[in-house]
Amino acid sequence: MQFQYQNSFEVKDSIHKSKIAILPIGAVEAHGPHLPLGTDNLLAERLSEKLAERVNAFVLPTLPYGQVWSLRNFPGSINISNDSLMNFLVDIGESLYKQGFTTFAMVNGHLGNGPALKDAARVLFENCPEMRVFYFFYPGMNKAAAEVRETKSSHNTYFHACEIETSYMLYLAPEHVDMDKAITDIPDIPIHADVTPTPWKEFTQTAVLGDAKLATEEKGKYIIDIAIENMAKLINSKY
Amino acid sequence: MQFQYQNSFEVKDSIHKSKIAILPIGAVEAHGPHLPLGTDNLLAERLSEKLAERVNAFVLPTLPYGQVWSLRNFPGSINISNDSLMNFLVDIGESLYKQGFTTFAMVNGHLGNGPALKDAARVLFENCPEMRVFYFFYPGMNKAAAEVRETKSSHNTYFHACEIETSYMLYLAPEHVDMDKAITDIPDIPIHADVTPTPWKEFTQTAVLGDAKLATEEKGKYIIDIAIENMAKLINSKY
Amino acid sequence: MQFQYQNSFEVKDSIHKSKIAILPIGAVEAHGPHLPLGTDNLLAERLSEKLAERVNAFVLPTLPYGQVWSLRNFPGSINISNDSLMNFLVDIGESLYKQGFTTFAMVNGHLGNGPALKDAARVLFENCPEMRVFYFFYPGMNKAAAEVRETKSSHNTYFHACEIETSYMLYLAPEHVDMDKAITDIPDIPIHADVTPTPWKEFTQTAVLGDAKLATEEKGKYIIDIAIENMAKLINSKY
Amino acid sequence: MQFQYQNSFEVKDSIHKSKIAILPIGAVEAHGPHLPLGTDNLLAERLSEKLAERVNAFVLPTLPYGQVWSLRNFPGSINISNDSLMNFLVDIGESLYKQGFTTFAMVNGHLGNGPALKDAARVLFENCPEMRVFYFFYPGMNKAAAEVRETKSSHNTYFHACEIETSYMLYLAPEHVDMDKAITDIPDIPIHADVTPTPWKEFTQTAVLGDAKLATEEKGKYIIDIAIENMAKLINSKY
Amino acid sequence: MQFQYQNSFEVKDSIHKSKIAILPIGAVEAHGPHLPLGTDNLLAERLSEKLAERVNAFVLPTLPYGQVWSLRNFPGSINISNDSLMNFLVDIGESLYKQGFTTFAMVNGHLGNGPALKDAARVLFENCPEMRVFYFFYPGMNKAAAEVRETKSSHNTYFHACEIETSYMLYLAPEHVDMDKAITDIPDIPIHADVTPTPWKEFTQTAVLGDAKLATEEKGKYIIDIAIENMAKLINSKY
Amino acid sequence: MQFQYQNSFEVKDSIHKSKIAILPIGAVEAHGPHLPLGTDNLLAERLSEKLAERVNAFVLPTLPYGQVWSLRNFPGSINISNDSLMNFLVDIGESLYKQGFTTFAMVNGHLGNGPALKDAARVLFENCPEMRVFYFFYPGMNKAAAEVRETKSSHNTYFHACEIETSYMLYLAPEHVDMDKAITDIPDIPIHADVTPTPWKEFTQTAVLGDAKLATEEKGKYIIDIAIENMAKLINSKY
Repeated sequence: MQFQYQNSFEVKDSIHKSKIAILPIGAVEAHGPHLPLGTDNLLAERLSEKLAERVNAFVLPTLPYGQVWSLRNFPGSINISNDSLMNFLVDIGESLYKQGFTTFAMVNGHLGNGPALKDAARVLFENCPEMRVFYFFYPGMNKAAAEVRETKSSHNTYFHACEIETSYMLYLAPEHVDMDKAITDIPDIPIHADVTPTPWKEFTQTAVLGDAKLATEEKGKYIIDIAIENMAKLINSKY
Repeated sequence: MQFQYQNSFEVKDSIHKSKIAILPIGAVEAHGPHLPLGTDNLLAERLSEKLAERVNAFVLPTLPYGQVWSLRNFPGSINISNDSLMNFLVDIGESLYKQGFTTFAMVNGHLGNGPALKDAARVLFENCPEMRVFYFFYPGMNKAAAEVRETKSSHNTYFHACEIETSYMLYLAPEHVDMDKAITDIPDIPIHADVTPTPWKEFTQTAVLGDAKLATEEKGKYIIDIAIENMAKLINSKY
Repeated sequence: MQFQYQNSFEVKDSIHKSKIAILPIGAVEAHGPHLPLGTDNLLAERLSEKLAERVNAFVLPTLPYGQVWSLRNFPGSINISNDSLMNFLVDIGESLYKQGFTTFAMVNGHLGNGPALKDAARVLFENCPEMRVFYFFYPGMNKAAAEVRETKSSHNTYFHACEIETSYMLYLAPEHVDMDKAITDIPDIPIHADVTPTPWKEFTQTAVLGDAKLATEEKGKYIIDIAIENMAKLINSKY
Repeated sequence: MQFQYQNSFEVKDSIHKSKIAILPIGAVEAHGPHLPLGTDNLLAERLSEKLAERVNAFVLPTLPYGQVWSLRNFPGSINISNDSLMNFLVDIGESLYKQGFTTFAMVNGHLGNGPALKDAARVLFENCPEMRVFYFFYPGMNKAAAEVRETKSSHNTYFHACEIETSYMLYLAPEHVDMDKAITDIPDIPIHADVTPTPWKEFTQTAVLGDAKLATEEKGKYIIDIAIENMAKLINSKY
Repeated sequence: MQFQYQNSFEVKDSIHKSKIAILPIGAVEAHGPHLPLGTDNLLAERLSEKLAERVNAFVLPTLPYGQVWSLRNFPGSINISNDSLMNFLVDIGESLYKQGFTTFAMVNGHLGNGPALKDAARVLFENCPEMRVFYFFYPGMNKAAAEVRETKSSHNTYFHACEIETSYMLYLAPEHVDMDKAITDIPDIPIHADVTPTPWKEFTQTAVLGDAKLATEEKGKYIIDIAIENMAKLINSKY
Repeated sequence: MQFQYQNSFEVKDSIHKSKIAILPIGAVEAHGPHLPLGTDNLLAERLSEKLAERVNAFVLPTLPYGQVWSLRNFPGSINISNDSLMNFLVDIGESLYKQGFTTFAMVNGHLGNGPALKDAARVLFENCPEMRVFYFFYPGMNKAAAEVRETKSSHNTYFHACEIETSYMLYLAPEHVDMDKAITDIPDIPIHADVTPTPWKEFTQTAVLGDAKLATEEKGKYIIDIAIENMAKLINSKY
């Protein structure tokens, strides 16, 4: 069900059966010494594949660049502005709508993409009235992560290259994790980081926010499976 | 040298050795019954890999969506506007510049992306004065294709899912070609297509512009190797 | 210290003593039968005045319109787009910077303004490097509210015209509260509201999200005083 | 009839009776030693209140920032670009239209806002065909002011913090005027000020353009009452 | 001194002697039965030529399209938006600045272009600090016209295809005037035309605002020569 | 049939007979020592006149500024951005559409305008569904020029102030050609000029790309007449 590996004639036929398109969106961003720059792309992509199987959907090619303002000065980070990202997503959504899709699910692997995705979804809400647009970022993960994590989160909203995200990778893309290089680097995130623009270099030199050493495939599987379950339910629900 | 599979620490070290970043850009677009929607992505990506080996460069993750105005109404096509595409590319280029890259080579697999790439390159020419920006679309292919093709081109500028492009695929991504479905469909492209907006559905029902049956891996290899040679020379030249 | 009631000559003199400008930002939005449309303006304005006294700052005139997408179809709501709001705020910030201010604190009374404020702050971070820009939305309120509330919150991120916000009003603008009309209206917010555009009319007819009858001035004072304390500390901190 | 002090339920009921919304728009701008920075806000606001009584309209919260290019370098001035201002006003207008208003009257207290208001009105003319949009700036004042003024105007189009505007303030907001500080400062406005961008600091150090000492409440009342009469007629006229 | 009829080598030499560039700007717009659609272009162009002789300047090619919102629904009118016009003018101005010009004088033949020209001039004021930018619209004509006109003006700001403008044409482009078709058509311009968007078709069917029959070459010459004198003085003044 | 020399009443009548509007578009750009800066304007204008006679069309006033990025640093060049040019053209097109025209033919005298014209045409294709929009740049000239030229072209896409373009001028605007100053200046255009932004000063000091001395009126006539024939056929064709 990889959309881009099908041809135009096949899609024409099969779009009648599945009108759900899933777009993985990630980022190229520093993720410490043990995870690759493309971590969020790998997660979004593989999560999307699993979800697509559950709900019988097409998986679109991964959009592998995102808004990484906070870490943009770290080696390897590539930053897309909110505006550029939003406009690009609106274009994709409008094409899908014209093609006849009725569900456009953005599976996001990078928290910083959130505002652009939400804005794009609202534009599409106006322009494509009969298409549902989702912006997913591991729905249900907060509760699930709390159940399995051994250290507390460094921040109440974001997590990065830590016990949790590394666990996701061990479950979804283990061949790209080098646990020998995993580190424990618990930052002291200043309170002002929530209320004034704060590049992360102010409080971390590694881009790891926590204890990556505690990551396990099991933890990852536990949370991810819940997220997939939640996404599947939301896509399949009638409302 | 896949950029996104390296981690931030590795990139920090290796960027001193190679300051060349290659971005494959393609499209999701109808390519007849024998080639997948992602043909231009596959071509751009694999061409980039070969080029990267030659010039010791990083390959960035493929940007898999492009401007497909002419075929946007065909099943499976996803169209990005010139503006959205250009802004996205400028953002990528500016990040690379800040990261210290001195060469940003866009390897384009889809002709329709041309204007956006050229515009982006000109913006970067102003904003990033010490970085060279290339927009490559098979440089030298016109002469090389003329030497090997058995049928004449349907159009003097564009070619699509035909003897030539299918040959590229047979060389670079044969596992995604289904030669059993290859067809001969020589369109009669009206003269006005060059001087007024003309959706291709006006002259083709298949999106194939020529005789795909005549494609061979050898023809593809001949042209592609010349293109790679040309790109390598241009990147390595001092001017 | 109301900025607009001073004259140009006075400001010229006093700006040397206080280089802190506070901008109250609210919205015109439905707030149930017991609170006025301008609730968020009143809160932002009076909170700003208290804060200004604490940190010896100027209070700018309230910007009384905000992004109220979710409730825009309710009687009386006036909606400003993220873009319009952000550009307006950037203009204000750049003027303050040219005037010599070194701290620009946006005191936000409406959650929906959050993304625009954050984006504006990031633009100003680039353009006005020596000015600190804050976007405050009751910092510390989550913990404080949990301590005093008698009912649980209807949503983990937003709250509206409920026990909490009504308490704020009873403390800061009691003359605009009509507790006789306060209602209990606990919505069943669907899970999809977090992942797809969802006008609030889908789950509330009153715009009240909770039990407004439980509001007291004391609860409001408790939380607001903590928020003021936090804002004052952040403004006065050197980092 | 202060819109923001009503609640959503009240507005829902009363909007059937009055479909006229008045928006006061001013600016934060230097107005000499005797008038506050917010002079134009105070004038717009109080003028709007008087007008609202006459025509039974809602008064929206004052938009207290405007385009003050000419005086932007004076202490205390805050400048909004034409574009930002226009987009903000269009958003307000479109919301009012959706709410059912049939008349949107912008009562402008600052001449420099004129172009943005006119542009916004033209956009709304297209987008909101059944709503009348007014941009008022003391209609009829030229003739009326000529009748009462004792000194001639410094300029044939603009007036500022002078005999006339100070008189407006003495009538509408006397508690914010300090006549002890009123000065006579008659500028020699160069002819080129009408044909090339000319910051006012070129010809005034005080921002007063005339003889503020001659201001009286009576003069203000005479002109303002005529302006109100004119606005009321225009709003009530059927055409 | 027609800029476009010189070649690049000549300009390179002569730009050292004259650093003044004059841009005629007009419009294509209905001008009654006796004047052509291009009236404002002809006026701007010929006025510019006379001015160029006086101040030894280059005349750039006429920009023959302008903002004609009010008459856009009349046969033959072509309307450019304020934004499009302003951006185009800024581009021209920035090129002239890079070429070494120190004075950019826009000679405007159409009142409706005013806001766009003023906005463009302000942008150039920031971007091109050492170039003076003028936006001329017959400076001094109000007083001069009052001296010669036999009928009073239909409006205190605008005039159109009437005694005055027809006189301009009789002086500057008589071969394009057909006085046999000149009419007297004095409109009753409603007061609301100044405060709400009002297409002119509401008060005129001919686009003539006055008594074109009274036009004479002498009247035109009298006013135009004063305008030229004023423009020359402003360009030559040092300030 | 010069549009701007007709009056509004005449146009109202005659638009029923000819619904074809031709817009000449050129540029102000260095064209060597023997051709004026306005060469492309003269060519576009006179070509348009000949075409208009053939197809009974209106000729609009020439838009005399274009995108001349490559030569923008040469004396006398004035550069308009793609965006500014495109928006201006869209405005013109939309006005023509409202006026009732069914064919809008842009006759382009400057290759660099190509992308903006094509983009404008595509916007109009959406917005003005019943109007055909052409962007002509000497259709058929490649074949025709090959037949008459005595030297080979310096580049496979562009030509400039050379044997060919000078021949056009000798045919269409001979009074603006100074053949005594014509030079032979055959550039060595580097290959990278096609794949990276390359100001032409890198390879030419004169802006002449070839042997202008070989130009003749006959060569110009031969090619131009073919181009006119092609344009006339395209305009008159029913498809």
